[in-house]
Amino acid sequence: PANKKLLFLPGDGIGPEVMRQVRRVIDWLDRKRNVTFDVTEGLVGGAAIDAYGVPLKDETLADALAADAVMLGAVGGPKWDNPTDYTKRPEAGLLTLRKELNLFANLRPAVVFDALVDASTLKADVIRGLDILIVRELTGGVYFGEPRGITDIGNGERRGVNTQVYTTSEIRRVARVAFELARKRGNKLHSMEKANVMESGLLWRQEVTKLHQEEFSDVTLEHMYADNGAMQLLKNPKQFDVIVTDNLFGDILSDEAAMMTGSLGMLPSASLGAPDANGQRKALYEPVHGSAPDIAGRDLANPCATLLSFAMCLRYSFNMDEEAKMLEKAVQNVLSGGMRTADIMAPGMARCSTTVMGDSILREL
Amino acid sequence: PANKKLLFLPGDGIGPEVMRQVRRVIDWLDRKRNVTFDVTEGLVGGAAIDAYGVPLKDETLADALAADAVMLGAVGGPKWDNPTDYTKRPEAGLLTLRKELNLFANLRPAVVFDALVDASTLKADVIRGLDILIVRELTGGVYFGEPRGITDIGNGERRGVNTQVYTTSEIRRVARVAFELARKRGNKLHSMEKANVMESGLLWRQEVTKLHQEEFSDVTLEHMYADNGAMQLLKNPKQFDVIVTDNLFGDILSDEAAMMTGSLGMLPSASLGAPDANGQRKALYEPVHGSAPDIAGRDLANPCATLLSFAMCLRYSFNMDEEAKMLEKAVQNVLSGGMRTADIMAPGMARCSTTVMGDSILREL
Ligand SMILES: CC(C)[C@H](C(=O)O)[C@@H](O)C(=O)O
Ligand SMILES: CC(C)[C@H](C(=O)O)[C@@H](O)C(=O)O
Repeated sequence: PANKKLLFLPGDGIGPEVMRQVRRVIDWLDRKRNVTFDVTEGLVGGAAIDAYGVPLKDETLADALAADAVMLGAVGGPKWDNPTDYTKRPEAGLLTLRKELNLFANLRPAVVFDALVDASTLKADVIRGLDILIVRELTGGVYFGEPRGITDIGNGERRGVNTQVYTTSEIRRVARVAFELARKRGNKLHSMEKANVMESGLLWRQEVTKLHQEEFSDVTLEHMYADNGAMQLLKNPKQFDVIVTDNLFGDILSDEAAMMTGSLGMLPSASLGAPDANGQRKALYEPVHGSAPDIAGRDLANPCATLLSFAMCLRYSFNMDEEAKMLEKAVQNVLSGGMRTADIMAPGMARCSTTVMGDSILREL
Repeated sequence: PANKKLLFLPGDGIGPEVMRQVRRVIDWLDRKRNVTFDVTEGLVGGAAIDAYGVPLKDETLADALAADAVMLGAVGGPKWDNPTDYTKRPEAGLLTLRKELNLFANLRPAVVFDALVDASTLKADVIRGLDILIVRELTGGVYFGEPRGITDIGNGERRGVNTQVYTTSEIRRVARVAFELARKRGNKLHSMEKANVMESGLLWRQEVTKLHQEEFSDVTLEHMYADNGAMQLLKNPKQFDVIVTDNLFGDILSDEAAMMTGSLGMLPSASLGAPDANGQRKALYEPVHGSAPDIAGRDLANPCATLLSFAMCLRYSFNMDEEAKMLEKAVQNVLSGGMRTADIMAPGMARCSTTVMGDSILREL
């Protein structure tokens, strides 16, 4: 069979150094598990702006479309903030990838690792054993809606506009992913919007309700206003199993949930497209954390989120559940052994660099 | 001088019972402090829908426009959820009031009371002494932008649209309020948007920066993406003093901040308009908590948030700083004495009803 095709986009800040640890796992798969990946590498975000003047070259996008999966590090940084041309910001590269690959379902687990319960600012009792999955719509809503832009309206006044828009099928396809995932987990889905204020949210609520009645009435469904969701996450996070929400609310709520776990540096994500005729989905995997420019290039970053993103990649894109589990177990064992990068360091543990964390995980494998 | 004109809009759920405690404070002001209020009462939200078929009658709106200040309880409840006519939901009454009174600046303090540190799901160290003020834009953005609505687009598909829109002057006037409040406090302002994704957010960032340079360069200003804001609030809440943000982000982030304090039942809010020729602002005061239909009518609700909202009313609308402080002090003393309504009950404290909490606060006064 043809080799598995992976596109590597390390991006900015700590992206390259955490992605380097994934390379090592790929070597290990090649040597020990007889699985060979064809890895192409490209630039995205600020790195691409510096090299080519655009955050994503057409060639890189073509590579992404041709690949079985994309592994991304992180994009952005103060160096490229506030550009005068809105299409030339690092984030535009990531957004183009999401849109062109049609990656409408963004899976963001918020999981508390037993070894890291104390890293959270929340009380241990509140979050111990937490295991939430947020399914964020990723190719619609106010991120992509038209019209958009800033216009001069005279008298020194300007007007900034974005459009929040969802259609029936956009809502149904992401809700379907969420319902299916809920079935494999705790069988409970919370859908969040602001149906009390926004018609787009009302449509969201109605379509989710309809799909539930039609195909998923065995799953427990609850609707919650997004502001209440932000509160309930804090009040009693364990009431949640799977949460489905739109692009913008998903951005905020998944970051809130991620920070609640106290270990942002541990959290992976997967962005999935629609299955094609062969059941294959386009997919992009990236850590939930950002590019962390303040610690970039200093071998301080936590590579676990990116390694766990690669585990999701093995599972969802290559059907390699066994290898995914081995990698996840290796990360857990290293944590249980007391190894900690700076972001999750705690008294009595062993502080280590990005590379040494990678070494230890490779040794476990 | 003419009596001070107050409009009372108790609204739905626990609204009426918490507002009743404000009446008692008004009686006390009349008897003991020689300050007389003309209080008119009206219906809003579900209560108005039940009585008149609309969430806010024109007459009630006229009363609000004629009043010096409006005190509101809460609106909404499952009874009025999912109406077929979007203008007939309880929330529409509140939104009309905000818009017609031009209450563009919503002040939402997130304060941790010493006596209630343990009520939070966050660790005591993280939140002890917390005192943040969120200034939420309240009459613009996606709450009011046009076009909006749900349309049939054929083939059984519908499309839901809302418009996020801000102009220079809308941004400047709310930022001005925030800068001025920051000056009276810790002199630090964080402005939150998604300038990396939304042009309306980019305009927001640019206009806040400009106003800062022009008039408030003595205040420390930081910009933060709203998703990062949701995380930083949890990670290290005490880094914040004043936060200014738009209507929708403000809705979510202020609820997150409120829940972090652990005592939602204690948090007041003020919504202020622009000063007129006499320096008078239209204003509406309401607790941050909702209508809590599950406990409505059972004398269980915490009246403190509403009483503290009335303290804000005395301060901002009637220049009665002394009486505002007396009321705030009375609430604090009752808490220190161990009185707790159910929502903030803790081991070793005395559990009391809405009425008894009111009794105790009146006794303190
Ligand atoms: C970098 C940015 C464009 C992005 C987003 O807003 O979606 C990020 O915050 C995320 O959550 O992946
Ligand atoms: C009731 C609802 C319309 C309102 C809002 O979304 O603004 C509420 O959540 C609030 O924060 O005051």
